[in-house]
Amino acid sequence: MNVHTIGVMMNGVTGRMGTNQHLVRSILAIREQGGVKVGDNEIIMPEPLLVGRNENKLKRLSDEHGGLPFTADVPGALQDNTWPLYFDAQTTVRRYESVKAAIAAGKHIYCEKPIAMTSAQGLGLHSLAERAGVKHGVVQDKLWLPGLRKLKHLIDSDFFGRILSVRVDFGYWVFTGEHEPSQRPSWNSKRAEGGGVFLDMLCHWRYVIDNLFGYIKSFTCLGAVHVTERWDEQGRRYDSDADDAIYATFITDRDIICHLSSSWCTRVRRDDLLMMQVDGMKGSAVAGLRECWIQPDSMTPKPVWNPDIPSPIDYRAGWALMPTNQEYDNAFKAQWELFLRHVVLDEPFPWNLKEGAKGVQLAELAYESWEKRRWMDVPEL
Amino acid sequence: MNVHTIGVMMNGVTGRMGTNQHLVRSILAIREQGGVKVGDNEIIMPEPLLVGRNENKLKRLSDEHGGLPFTADVPGALQDNTWPLYFDAQTTVRRYESVKAAIAAGKHIYCEKPIAMTSAQGLGLHSLAERAGVKHGVVQDKLWLPGLRKLKHLIDSDFFGRILSVRVDFGYWVFTGEHEPSQRPSWNSKRAEGGGVFLDMLCHWRYVIDNLFGYIKSFTCLGAVHVTERWDEQGRRYDSDADDAIYATFITDRDIICHLSSSWCTRVRRDDLLMMQVDGMKGSAVAGLRECWIQPDSMTPKPVWNPDIPSPIDYRAGWALMPTNQEYDNAFKAQWELFLRHVVLDEPFPWNLKEGAKGVQLAELAYESWEKRRWMDVPEL
Amino acid sequence: MNVHTIGVMMNGVTGRMGTNQHLVRSILAIREQGGVKVGDNEIIMPEPLLVGRNENKLKRLSDEHGGLPFTADVPGALQDNTWPLYFDAQTTVRRYESVKAAIAAGKHIYCEKPIAMTSAQGLGLHSLAERAGVKHGVVQDKLWLPGLRKLKHLIDSDFFGRILSVRVDFGYWVFTGEHEPSQRPSWNSKRAEGGGVFLDMLCHWRYVIDNLFGYIKSFTCLGAVHVTERWDEQGRRYDSDADDAIYATFITDRDIICHLSSSWCTRVRRDDLLMMQVDGMKGSAVAGLRECWIQPDSMTPKPVWNPDIPSPIDYRAGWALMPTNQEYDNAFKAQWELFLRHVVLDEPFPWNLKEGAKGVQLAELAYESWEKRRWMDVPEL
Amino acid sequence: MNVHTIGVMMNGVTGRMGTNQHLVRSILAIREQGGVKVGDNEIIMPEPLLVGRNENKLKRLSDEHGGLPFTADVPGALQDNTWPLYFDAQTTVRRYESVKAAIAAGKHIYCEKPIAMTSAQGLGLHSLAERAGVKHGVVQDKLWLPGLRKLKHLIDSDFFGRILSVRVDFGYWVFTGEHEPSQRPSWNSKRAEGGGVFLDMLCHWRYVIDNLFGYIKSFTCLGAVHVTERWDEQGRRYDSDADDAIYATFITDRDIICHLSSSWCTRVRRDDLLMMQVDGMKGSAVAGLRECWIQPDSMTPKPVWNPDIPSPIDYRAGWALMPTNQEYDNAFKAQWELFLRHVVLDEPFPWNLKEGAKGVQLAELAYESWEKRRWMDVPEL
Repeated sequence: MNVHTIGVMMNGVTGRMGTNQHLVRSILAIREQGGVKVGDNEIIMPEPLLVGRNENKLKRLSDEHGGLPFTADVPGALQDNTWPLYFDAQTTVRRYESVKAAIAAGKHIYCEKPIAMTSAQGLGLHSLAERAGVKHGVVQDKLWLPGLRKLKHLIDSDFFGRILSVRVDFGYWVFTGEHEPSQRPSWNSKRAEGGGVFLDMLCHWRYVIDNLFGYIKSFTCLGAVHVTERWDEQGRRYDSDADDAIYATFITDRDIICHLSSSWCTRVRRDDLLMMQVDGMKGSAVAGLRECWIQPDSMTPKPVWNPDIPSPIDYRAGWALMPTNQEYDNAFKAQWELFLRHVVLDEPFPWNLKEGAKGVQLAELAYESWEKRRWMDVPEL
Repeated sequence: MNVHTIGVMMNGVTGRMGTNQHLVRSILAIREQGGVKVGDNEIIMPEPLLVGRNENKLKRLSDEHGGLPFTADVPGALQDNTWPLYFDAQTTVRRYESVKAAIAAGKHIYCEKPIAMTSAQGLGLHSLAERAGVKHGVVQDKLWLPGLRKLKHLIDSDFFGRILSVRVDFGYWVFTGEHEPSQRPSWNSKRAEGGGVFLDMLCHWRYVIDNLFGYIKSFTCLGAVHVTERWDEQGRRYDSDADDAIYATFITDRDIICHLSSSWCTRVRRDDLLMMQVDGMKGSAVAGLRECWIQPDSMTPKPVWNPDIPSPIDYRAGWALMPTNQEYDNAFKAQWELFLRHVVLDEPFPWNLKEGAKGVQLAELAYESWEKRRWMDVPEL
Repeated sequence: MNVHTIGVMMNGVTGRMGTNQHLVRSILAIREQGGVKVGDNEIIMPEPLLVGRNENKLKRLSDEHGGLPFTADVPGALQDNTWPLYFDAQTTVRRYESVKAAIAAGKHIYCEKPIAMTSAQGLGLHSLAERAGVKHGVVQDKLWLPGLRKLKHLIDSDFFGRILSVRVDFGYWVFTGEHEPSQRPSWNSKRAEGGGVFLDMLCHWRYVIDNLFGYIKSFTCLGAVHVTERWDEQGRRYDSDADDAIYATFITDRDIICHLSSSWCTRVRRDDLLMMQVDGMKGSAVAGLRECWIQPDSMTPKPVWNPDIPSPIDYRAGWALMPTNQEYDNAFKAQWELFLRHVVLDEPFPWNLKEGAKGVQLAELAYESWEKRRWMDVPEL
Repeated sequence: MNVHTIGVMMNGVTGRMGTNQHLVRSILAIREQGGVKVGDNEIIMPEPLLVGRNENKLKRLSDEHGGLPFTADVPGALQDNTWPLYFDAQTTVRRYESVKAAIAAGKHIYCEKPIAMTSAQGLGLHSLAERAGVKHGVVQDKLWLPGLRKLKHLIDSDFFGRILSVRVDFGYWVFTGEHEPSQRPSWNSKRAEGGGVFLDMLCHWRYVIDNLFGYIKSFTCLGAVHVTERWDEQGRRYDSDADDAIYATFITDRDIICHLSSSWCTRVRRDDLLMMQVDGMKGSAVAGLRECWIQPDSMTPKPVWNPDIPSPIDYRAGWALMPTNQEYDNAFKAQWELFLRHVVLDEPFPWNLKEGAKGVQLAELAYESWEKRRWMDVPEL
């Protein structure tokens, strides 16, 4: 058996996403399944190094998983050739400097979004990585959600005919923390600490739209700070000044219109937290995180306007649930496997730092659109 | 018994809306119930005169309803004092001249929306009516839909606390007529004949938003001509050049954001053709044409992001259906009764021709917003 | 890791409540979870000493839990500084003297309700503890029931608007022991042995009402000895002379009326053993031990009185179940953790011996109300 | 066929109860079924005379029912021997004088409750009727509700063994009229116009308890004016000053305790608007308006207190629904038939004006109990 062992520095692994999605459900899950099988007798096996700032937390996480190696000495680890791959899941404000140092140390780079606080910094990281000749990638997990992969399948198989428009609704009610604890950390609601739904979510919507419906050409984006008073993890009241809702309309280079809302101040009466409706000449689809419902032209009912009586048509019943014909791996793990193959086997990996910078770019332009109340063109980076 | 009889010229009564909503379900329904009861021993009784251009159609309609009086001689009827009230449900392009003539003849005016092709004309009608001292009103039926009245009740009783935002989705798939007949007339899809969803529907959205959420201050509106080829009532192919979808974002003077789509090119997977979601600090509601579901703060679930498993929360089950505690009359009839009281008893009737002109104004500004790709302020008329 | 170890004498631990709720589900559960976490690197760890009168029972209990230390020598343990905290779950008649001795020995005090047979004694314990400068608290577990915490959440978030009234029904059928064993011990039904539902349950209702709806100002309470003949643990018939039902009406200082029944002679046709209905101007709620159902104003149906037909309204369906957005710990354990923090960190703990005395006071006044058939004011202690 | 025709003056018949329950569902229903059959060839046939103050309303009601005779001339009708029976369903404030005049005219008397505004007046009417030698009765319809008749059946057949206690909950939410019309007339909420739940409902509870559980010996009754602001039939705001809730505890001469709430300010989460639970040594029953559920001793579960888990017992499932073995007539009609038999055949009719006066007496004593905050004995009338 040919085993490609590859050491992975996981910086910020004690955070919620770092622990759950990247360590447990991705790297450890890959190890448990016996590595990434890349040939009949060939596997890639990642070896994680837990990295962070709090030794106690690192120790506890290490203990819970059978004594994984850990360190709070980042410069030391960067000098250590045992770990050629650097992964970053710290809070956004620390990302740029940390990734820059890792590139300088010759590490391959994989990191969470947003890759930086500004697109200029993001683009800078891309140039540095290119010049240093290291491999690089950004987490774009939503592309591997089962619901979106089903949608991709419908697009690729020309189910829709010409696609006319897309409606996206995402979000849920983030509790203020006054009467019961909030389900999101307080820094998310503070502009000064890197919070705000624009930077957080427009990074996602950029790659989702680009990959499914064409590059965003032009858009308008209205933001809001709906909730201005929240209570933090210690129950202390604070002024929440970060944007908590996005109301946007996009036009892509395929002339598809995408009308989107993404909010932490909405209560969900949908099948799932994320719902995307795509309308095409030959049919429509509505996708959630995991499921997808379709209505081809031939199943489309013809409503008659008569509000005097309850609708004689059950508008939900006329849609068919797509079957789940394959098992979908965890979205993060799926992308991790592709990145490991990219590093070891040099397979293509289009989701690189430039793509990461595009997400930040969209957030920047969106702030400008909101402030100036105007439509923005999206220049090429 | 004190009976106020009032003769009503119904011009355009042979059209679909004229016959079904205004004649049968409003005027004749009022007659069948014994008139509008306005006191213990006092009623208002409307007497319709069917008016139109096609004598055969008028004769047939008259016969179907027990021999109602009818005429194709509009000028003659305008001179006849038997009919002090003029109602207009013709196609939009004929409205301005017809209503102007009726005002000149000293008739009270009630008419369908849009009241004219331009807001200048609409405002002109308002001035003429005011100067002539006649009563005037415009149909704004959606305000009396049971679902919207329930929403109004929630707003008035402060169910929402501070209202943050509104999401409106309306529309359905209008068949092209190629393989089976379309359910809307072909002139709707031709710009030259007064078609287009902007003029048609933004008149509605103007008064719905103004009345429920505050006056529209500013907005952006993107239109589309999604379907460019259709087949008419005779099965002949034609180029459909009228706008068939609206993607808009409004801000009202109460700082409520309203994100709206209104499209003839969408397939419906909702509880009803129209769905409006209102999110407030203390609760949210989702209203359709007849029903309304609510989720107060205390019923709000706390979702945990985990797309690896089907959602453990049933996001639809956590909403309660509002009871229907009163019988709701047909929306058109409800407004007709108020207008008849306005004419006879001089009770207030805020839905006048100026309000009608505002609807046309919004459509005009929306075309400009679309063309110039920019946000528009809405000046006072 | 900074560990605050604290030894706890658990007197009366072999009784049903002592073993199940206080030892197993509280102290041992806290130990199993790694203590009470009070900081990033700081915990409180209780060390129990099993105390009682029957060495055999103590030995058996100790063995079942891995050899916990135990003793029947109370005076000896009181002199031992290993155990700074004294907890009492003996039968009520033994409590006063035992707690007095523990205070004299300088122990911190935590004890079950009723804290004494009379309020004078209860108040005496409070004074002694204050003078001795020891920490003290009384078990008021019902405040941490999930159903009541949900109710508290509704009150705090002003769900109800002005609260008008509360209806409480509690109890179940306590078998007489004639044909099958009773589910409650026989001393509960004997006045001379400290039995009676007044002393037992009014201690609870005092703190529940005080904490949720305002201090009880005035009340009337009718008692009953419904069942006068019972059979004890050995199957011997005896005269049961203790009160077995409470029918009371309370008024609080917020002018909320609370109409309550609490009975060992009722058969339960409710969702739970305890049900509390709260009616407010803006909504109502019905809480059980764990769940809570709500009906805001906007969900309230409008019944029409017509007993000729089955009700067209399903009065139960119109209520919504509150979601369980957080995991609720065992109620006893939740309060134990707060008391341990109070002892070690000096955090506030309002449920002290004076509050315990108030419960006894209410029972005393209730006996007088019953006997004299009159309304009682509740003087401040 | 021997037909006893008997003319009935129905005063106040245009009111809601007068029309629906007494005219349509009682007198006209008796006429439609061919009269009250009292022997093989013998029937009693009532002939109604509609009496009131508003001729228009009387005319309309008469027309709706095929031209029944009517008059607004009460003195004239009282002199007319065609109508030997006088029935009164006017508002309470008019009852005393009207019934007195009818007795003076030698009419038999049947009337709605409350029979007067004071028990002294009520007793006065009883004496006058006795001295005049006319037959007399009071409506006590609830005794003929199917649910209460089933309860009576259980009592009579000794299902309960010794009855210990009764819990009664009645009422519903009476809308304030602010946002939607109230379902009860505004005079009900005005003390000066004879409104108030005490006078209205304690008349019912008196005869229900007396007839089912024994004469009320002693009781306490707390009232409330929970809602102090309402809107009347014309949408005008007014101060509502009448009592709108009853919280009472009764003891009967069979030593049964009855704990009761009766409120217009409660939202209903029960099987029916009225629920009565009766607990006895051998079994319990819960009755609504139409249905009755029972749990005999042998079906009684033995609950174990453990709020850490959802109750393993379904407390509602353990009750059995009593079968409906007979068709129950409308409660009002059932009593009407008995009263007609009493008048014509001299059959016994215990529900006479003295019983009617007892209802008023209870309301009077209840006001005193509330005001003085004390228990009241109920002296014999």
